[in-house]
Amino acid sequence: MNAVKRIERALDAAVSMAEMPGCPPKLAAAMRYSVFPGGARIRPRLCLAVAGACGEDQPKLADAVAASIELLHCASLVHDDLPCFDDAETRRGRPSVHRAFGEPLAVLAGDSLIVLAFQVLVQNAAPSPSRLVPLVKTIGGSVGIPWGIVAGQAWECEDHADLAEYQREKTGALFAAATIAGAAAAGAEAEPWRLLGERLGEAYQVADDIRDVIENAEDLGKPVGRDLALGRPNAAAQFGLDGAVQRLRRLAGEAVEAIPDCPGARELRAVILSETQRLMPKKLAQHAA
Amino acid sequence: MNAVKRIERALDAAVSMAEMPGCPPKLAAAMRYSVFPGGARIRPRLCLAVAGACGEDQPKLADAVAASIELLHCASLVHDDLPCFDDAETRRGRPSVHRAFGEPLAVLAGDSLIVLAFQVLVQNAAPSPSRLVPLVKTIGGSVGIPWGIVAGQAWECEDHADLAEYQREKTGALFAAATIAGAAAAGAEAEPWRLLGERLGEAYQVADDIRDVIENAEDLGKPVGRDLALGRPNAAAQFGLDGAVQRLRRLAGEAVEAIPDCPGARELRAVILSETQRLMPKKLAQHAA
Repeated sequence: MNAVKRIERALDAAVSMAEMPGCPPKLAAAMRYSVFPGGARIRPRLCLAVAGACGEDQPKLADAVAASIELLHCASLVHDDLPCFDDAETRRGRPSVHRAFGEPLAVLAGDSLIVLAFQVLVQNAAPSPSRLVPLVKTIGGSVGIPWGIVAGQAWECEDHADLAEYQREKTGALFAAATIAGAAAAGAEAEPWRLLGERLGEAYQVADDIRDVIENAEDLGKPVGRDLALGRPNAAAQFGLDGAVQRLRRLAGEAVEAIPDCPGARELRAVILSETQRLMPKKLAQHAA
Repeated sequence: MNAVKRIERALDAAVSMAEMPGCPPKLAAAMRYSVFPGGARIRPRLCLAVAGACGEDQPKLADAVAASIELLHCASLVHDDLPCFDDAETRRGRPSVHRAFGEPLAVLAGDSLIVLAFQVLVQNAAPSPSRLVPLVKTIGGSVGIPWGIVAGQAWECEDHADLAEYQREKTGALFAAATIAGAAAAGAEAEPWRLLGERLGEAYQVADDIRDVIENAEDLGKPVGRDLALGRPNAAAQFGLDGAVQRLRRLAGEAVEAIPDCPGARELRAVILSETQRLMPKKLAQHAA
């Protein structure tokens, strides 16, 4: 079964827990709407690619880790879209969760998805309980305090935020978790995988910043120019479009070089190269061609 | 060291993680404000009482479990107070978190506290990693889907909610987690402890419903009559004040009877009796005297 199918199946199994008797049906619907249909699923695909490269021996656990990371990503989108943050009307080309279900259910769907990320881990850790320690530590750190995505989002509430710190926490943390936890799911030493995830996270953030400046809302499925409108740090605004593109290329190269020794290093290198090429916004790729 | 000191120390250690360099200071302040000064800390005290009765052998782990449960309780208060739910101006006699820090930081403080509940567990599980599995399962289930406090809160978004289901999830789930996880922290068989927690949770909810009807806002430190104003289920409104008081007494008795066999059953019985007596609102206790 290919990675995308494994991820969708694991996410479906997780969200299905909300469809059990006794769980409020509107919450279940809001959670499913938050997770399906997904975006590129880039973080869980990265997680499975690393688990595979490390000689994955517990595919169900690797699937759970990948799903856990994607659930956290979805949760962060739902809460970031709330009226008190971005007040986004659309997400992935349709109404945002709070527009479709109301603000209370958007808050609760986000909360439940955060918790579900941990529930999914523990449900699939029975065959190798010792791996649960590094996994909960990594996943918890990637979303919580002091340096996870929630901390990153909270920099938007400060008068002065450091662009690097903000992006490392808001985007990089979950990418680093994808590589570290991918290795931990396979029973490999996890920490050497941090740098790969961090570089890919930075690259992804720069690509997102570029898109926010150059794309139109229809292509992107969400509003554009939001960073400027909301006074948020944006690499393309800070370094100029050419500077941002150069930065993206450099980060992609550093990511490939950061792959640690592992049984499947060669295949992983090909995956990372292909992923980083996909990051470059189409308009710029056409422009460069 | 007594239970209250242990709980405050464990909570302080947890929240201090947000005060590390690189974590946004306003988020750290909002989290500390959400947790200190606390209320009665009834859930973590219950958790430690059960761990002690089961022959606690890992006090640091028991402290972490107690803190984890209180962090989730605090998180639920912060999110429940948000404008899109209760829009509470005050909590524990001072401005609610969103009134003091703004809505974005209230959402993020709640999110971070949820995650911190899991981080605290894993940080203290190293000496007995096998206990992490039942602990994460119990804590996750008590807050998430399908039957945790977030699911309970989401019943408020449904057109029709069953009073028993609503209260079992919104309040009972975290009390049940306190007893179950207290036993699990001590390495004891955990599931027999569920009934005690459920009965205490119901008793606490009924007491809270009574207070919502009879107390004044100054005594309570938060607005009163909110259930009626918000159209929420309330046992005192449903069964009348006398009916609710009878129900509270019956639940307290059932809780004491539900204590499983354990080394410290006698001391625990005394604790539970004292706790359930404290639940009776002062005005009614005076009236009955």
